[in-house]
Amino acid sequence: MLPSELRSNIRNGKHQTHTSGYCQDYVQTNLVVLPKEYAFDFLLFTIRNSKACPIVEVLEAGQFESRYAEGSDIRTDIPMYHVYEDGHLVEKKTRIDDVWREDFVTFLIGCSFTFESQLIKGEIPLRHIEENKNVAMYTTNIQTEKAGVFQGPTVVSMRPIPDHLVQKATDITSLFPKMHGAPVHIGDPGEIGIEDITKPDYGDFVGIMDGETPMFWACGVTPQAVAIHAKIPYMITHAPGCMFVMDWKNEEYLNEGE
Amino acid sequence: MLPSELRSNIRNGKHQTHTSGYCQDYVQTNLVVLPKEYAFDFLLFTIRNSKACPIVEVLEAGQFESRYAEGSDIRTDIPMYHVYEDGHLVEKKTRIDDVWREDFVTFLIGCSFTFESQLIKGEIPLRHIEENKNVAMYTTNIQTEKAGVFQGPTVVSMRPIPDHLVQKATDITSLFPKMHGAPVHIGDPGEIGIEDITKPDYGDFVGIMDGETPMFWACGVTPQAVAIHAKIPYMITHAPGCMFVMDWKNEEYLNEGE
Repeated sequence: MLPSELRSNIRNGKHQTHTSGYCQDYVQTNLVVLPKEYAFDFLLFTIRNSKACPIVEVLEAGQFESRYAEGSDIRTDIPMYHVYEDGHLVEKKTRIDDVWREDFVTFLIGCSFTFESQLIKGEIPLRHIEENKNVAMYTTNIQTEKAGVFQGPTVVSMRPIPDHLVQKATDITSLFPKMHGAPVHIGDPGEIGIEDITKPDYGDFVGIMDGETPMFWACGVTPQAVAIHAKIPYMITHAPGCMFVMDWKNEEYLNEGE
Repeated sequence: MLPSELRSNIRNGKHQTHTSGYCQDYVQTNLVVLPKEYAFDFLLFTIRNSKACPIVEVLEAGQFESRYAEGSDIRTDIPMYHVYEDGHLVEKKTRIDDVWREDFVTFLIGCSFTFESQLIKGEIPLRHIEENKNVAMYTTNIQTEKAGVFQGPTVVSMRPIPDHLVQKATDITSLFPKMHGAPVHIGDPGEIGIEDITKPDYGDFVGIMDGETPMFWACGVTPQAVAIHAKIPYMITHAPGCMFVMDWKNEEYLNEGE
């Protein structure tokens, strides 16, 4: 299926579930929509924490068509949105054109689907994908670099990797600094403040077998978590797993460099 | 001389001229100070045009000490400032602490001094430096990518390079995408809209001899030019050649990658 077809199906209510596994060759992104008043601080935060927050595209105030997705409408082309007021989730919506404002700035942030497609091509097994689960994510003791009202801990995703493939997984992901890049930690979860690896803060734990090492990468949930923590009066995000799909292929994006 | 000494001399009125040739191993930056109201658009502009506008540091609203220059004060540590109102140069000042506002956001942008130090180490002769002149800069027909109120043509700097060193100069500068990167054009000035190469829009023409090729790089004057063009009500920049000197060495910065 082409991304334009998937977006159209979502817009028309024909596709109402997550986007994982759809349009696998294409870039999928996280969504954060904020009033322009907070846009400078948030953009600066993403620059200062680019490993966790790789910006794919910024839509200026009031704009809702991605330049990398012709005919798209960011207000209707995601299966499920979460609306936050003062840091609290107040509503889940299937479209946001009815609450859209001219001062809304949209941030499209790199998501691990793009990242994982390269690991799979490198023949690194990813158990959460094999088991059709969400990746396990943890709040750590690694602080982000503050910008304005935005601050807080880095959220990481964890993937159990066979010991003999740890170096290969490091090498592959190091090639893509714009897409989380090299792991932020390998091995003992306690060293980055994770007390119980079996209880992720988000997503599903899929076990760590004998002969496997937990590998941790900076996670695109980080900017959402800090924005919630900052208690922004009004913010909209995608619902977990329900991403925005672009017309841009993963490989084009990953090869873009700077 | 250490950067801290130079900054102190500038602050105390002992150094009142340009900074070219001083503290040559250290990063020098261009300065743009804008009211926060315009900071998001400007930051987005620099991201979209990172070749011309490599951001070294952003100081949040009201802040005036660089994190890469201990004890510095951005309001007093530059020899000469230019104040613009509605796009017009209205005043030249040796310090700006008397006009400082809590809503001023400071952008420190990469300058060609850093860039040129690598060319010189690569034994590429740079005539404007040998003759102690300012590099020649030209407005081109290459449009920047617009962000909010900021738009306009790319300004380039031109250096005449011996034909047999053109490839080497390209290779060296390509290594540093955060510092203007590879040339945007090599050869015929007419192709990028420069009608008379002997008449630069800024700086000094130093001739192009037989056996030399003009090479053009995106120039850090671009963001200033577009900010002036946008007729921002109030803006402060450094005066040409009068840069902010950091404690950070060129090589540390250039090796920073992303």
